[in-house]
Amino acid sequence: MRACRFLPVERVPVWMMRQAGRYLPEYRAIREKHSFLEVCRTPELAVEVSLQPYRLLHVDAVIVFSDILIPAMAMGMGLQIGDGGPDLGNPIRDAASVARLHNFDPEQETRFLCDALRILSRSVAGVPVLGFAGAPWTLACYMVEGKSKDGFPAVKQLLYHEPAVFRSLLDKIADNTARYLGAQIAAGASAVQLFDTWAGELSLDDYRAIALPATQQVIRQVKSAHPETPMILYSKATSHLLDALGETGADVLSLDWRVPLGEARRRFGHRMALQGNVDPCVLLGPPAGIETALRDAVAATEGHGHILNLGHGILPDTPVEHARHFIETAQKLQLAPVTARTGR
Amino acid sequence: MRACRFLPVERVPVWMMRQAGRYLPEYRAIREKHSFLEVCRTPELAVEVSLQPYRLLHVDAVIVFSDILIPAMAMGMGLQIGDGGPDLGNPIRDAASVARLHNFDPEQETRFLCDALRILSRSVAGVPVLGFAGAPWTLACYMVEGKSKDGFPAVKQLLYHEPAVFRSLLDKIADNTARYLGAQIAAGASAVQLFDTWAGELSLDDYRAIALPATQQVIRQVKSAHPETPMILYSKATSHLLDALGETGADVLSLDWRVPLGEARRRFGHRMALQGNVDPCVLLGPPAGIETALRDAVAATEGHGHILNLGHGILPDTPVEHARHFIETAQKLQLAPVTARTGR
Repeated sequence: MRACRFLPVERVPVWMMRQAGRYLPEYRAIREKHSFLEVCRTPELAVEVSLQPYRLLHVDAVIVFSDILIPAMAMGMGLQIGDGGPDLGNPIRDAASVARLHNFDPEQETRFLCDALRILSRSVAGVPVLGFAGAPWTLACYMVEGKSKDGFPAVKQLLYHEPAVFRSLLDKIADNTARYLGAQIAAGASAVQLFDTWAGELSLDDYRAIALPATQQVIRQVKSAHPETPMILYSKATSHLLDALGETGADVLSLDWRVPLGEARRRFGHRMALQGNVDPCVLLGPPAGIETALRDAVAATEGHGHILNLGHGILPDTPVEHARHFIETAQKLQLAPVTARTGR
Repeated sequence: MRACRFLPVERVPVWMMRQAGRYLPEYRAIREKHSFLEVCRTPELAVEVSLQPYRLLHVDAVIVFSDILIPAMAMGMGLQIGDGGPDLGNPIRDAASVARLHNFDPEQETRFLCDALRILSRSVAGVPVLGFAGAPWTLACYMVEGKSKDGFPAVKQLLYHEPAVFRSLLDKIADNTARYLGAQIAAGASAVQLFDTWAGELSLDDYRAIALPATQQVIRQVKSAHPETPMILYSKATSHLLDALGETGADVLSLDWRVPLGEARRRFGHRMALQGNVDPCVLLGPPAGIETALRDAVAATEGHGHILNLGHGILPDTPVEHARHFIETAQKLQLAPVTARTGR
């Protein structure tokens, strides 16, 4: 929490995106008995898998187990998650289907998530609990494509042919997402992360015209009710959008290995803390590579205003001992004392 | 050809990546009778589908119909191309499997492609005929992953665990690719394009350490035998690699919509011509959007040292009349006369 606010820290905190997931045998054991959505929608199960990486690997933050498509379901879309990935029946393709989406009450339609956050924040007092949601552009990609999204032809077709309809979709998503994140904070989330996984598909001009205003709307709306809660914005393959990402209003920018942390730090200074940016493939490799990647990341920020993380979700094939080595090494990294650095 | 060399042109030339492909009913008619690989390996069929977009849409360059995995097959790998995409049986995972790859003689093992180029260059005298190959890093991604490549875990695992083995694989690919492109030029290709589709997966440091030397090796080796033949380098989502792409030795850099052409022009000046960079999704949209995208692209380069193209392959759902509108509009765009511009 101090790193989010650029306050002095004794060491750089660390967690991993998708830290509750398929690489853990304990997670797979639960998934053998329960479907993905069942785990999401049963607070006790969601809490159990959220806590697994905390108990097993001692990560510094617990992110609630859920899926970015839950709000699409709460807005009225059918959702199936199978081996081939998520499938939203009846994708959004016109004004009528946008109009059919309804504004949901997070404490009603997604009470399971709020309940999970309430239990989690009591279970791990002192450890930050993170809530999350998809950013409007990324959620719109899923809602319009429905299933496959190679090249995002449907979402871009809607955007180019019916810009007003597309904007009304983003507005609706942004408003619901803001209320959904607000409810997560009220239920105990210490910070929230917005996932804009597909922002990098857009050119800078399109990002500014389409995705940025909707993300700003979410952040503004959440901040107006919860000004003290840090908001983290994740994106990948967005080195061409870096300046615009600085205008979102997020407190922390979560980057992938394609954007050097040093460059982001030079660009934003103390205006935004940074999260990331180790390539998850590094965790497949030998321990020495994991150590180098962590040292390089911390060297780029000098460890201040920095949350160590991966640049994308941990890969299912990652050996658990490599994930543990990532966390343990990160937690042992020594920082130069702030006073000594200031004295130079 | 003049645009590749930054010589004055009367108008900006235009073609489309994957211009011979599924969006054309004439192509689908041939594919109903012949498999993808059958078309590649039968010169008369490859010539026929290569010529379809020239006859139907009057594109300014004819690219030979083939696949970037053909050299992997010629080096001894099994290849099947089905509805789920390409599948290379027995992917490369260790030193022994690299050693088993053999150096092939393009005029023997891929004679069908050389024959197609010989026929094409006679059929369309005066129109540039393009050959192509995958860049070493991108071909290695396919050869190591075999099939699925989400996040490229296998290729990065080999790279991090066995860097020497991975380098020997890139060396072998680079040498074979250079001879393969040389044979295409000898058979009549006026220019050749290297596709480094997955370069953007790498960080700048990894690109410089791994992919760049292998691409430089290909270009150097081809140029030593064919110094006058322009070489085009395609990549996508590589705005973080832009400086390094300038060091490859390519004559033309083919970019996607994520890299503003104006920025690339400012960075490279007259050192590299540019190709691209219209989002293929724009061709799904209304004609006015196609016109705007083309005008913006040409405004960014003032039309000199510029080949208009898409930023990625044309999408299968593209209406043929939109593809035609893209080509026709591009060919009608007026350039400011060079003398007037120089006089300013």
